[in-house]
Amino acid sequence: MRYFEDFPVGYTETFGSKTVVQDEIIAFAHEFDPQYFHTDPVAAEHSMFRGLVASGWHTVSMTCRMFTDHGLKDVLNLGGIGADDLLWMKAVRPGDTLYVKMTIVDARRSRSKPDRGAVRIRLDTYNQADECVVTATVTTLVGVRPTADS
Amino acid sequence: MRYFEDFPVGYTETFGSKTVVQDEIIAFAHEFDPQYFHTDPVAAEHSMFRGLVASGWHTVSMTCRMFTDHGLKDVLNLGGIGADDLLWMKAVRPGDTLYVKMTIVDARRSRSKPDRGAVRIRLDTYNQADECVVTATVTTLVGVRPTADS
Repeated sequence: MRYFEDFPVGYTETFGSKTVVQDEIIAFAHEFDPQYFHTDPVAAEHSMFRGLVASGWHTVSMTCRMFTDHGLKDVLNLGGIGADDLLWMKAVRPGDTLYVKMTIVDARRSRSKPDRGAVRIRLDTYNQADECVVTATVTTLVGVRPTADS
Repeated sequence: MRYFEDFPVGYTETFGSKTVVQDEIIAFAHEFDPQYFHTDPVAAEHSMFRGLVASGWHTVSMTCRMFTDHGLKDVLNLGGIGADDLLWMKAVRPGDTLYVKMTIVDARRSRSKPDRGAVRIRLDTYNQADECVVTATVTTLVGVRPTADS
């Protein structure tokens, strides 16, 4: 297992490889964000995106999956608190392949609950051309390493 | 249609009614956030949530759907820019029914592209007990009302 102590400020990892599928873009959009540039490949040609693009929340959710599978793998994660500085930098299109770079930007042990700490993690998601498509800084609670008397 | 001019600072709307279904929580989590407190109702009893809870990104995505259906209905939306101040305030559980209050907190017409403006919208999502479960401030580009010579 990995604990709060394993995520010092400046620690970085790069992980994931998710190829974006048109049917998944459309399915997500039908459920959560039914705007025509996310649901209709033909009509989307006439949008400012000039083609079908993933919902921004779909891109964030795909980022979450790579983060859960790798960045949070074997981590005593007690749950997310929030997110900040989320920017959709570039459209995500069918066929794009995404990966994530995570960087620890802050780590504070809780004073009221010393068995955990809040870790602020910047997640930058890139496409196959190494262009950043979305960036966000998430805060999550991570348990500290157990001691002999805990 | 509704345009940039229809969203002055302070404008507010309350909308939506989404009952959260256990199978949808699990399906979203399997695809995007496979942590046991989102996927396994039995194991989740032993988590700090004491039961199955929706992924925070699922709650945000359900909020997006209510926003798209109502807040952005008939709006010339040119696409989201980003989000800030996202906080998961309270766990969302199967059977909860969610609604959204949106409040315009800033609206700035673009100088470089005067046919649009950036609108900052606070979205507060509540459950059936009127407890806020998630809050976020999103920024989206909205087209201005066409004039006779445009």
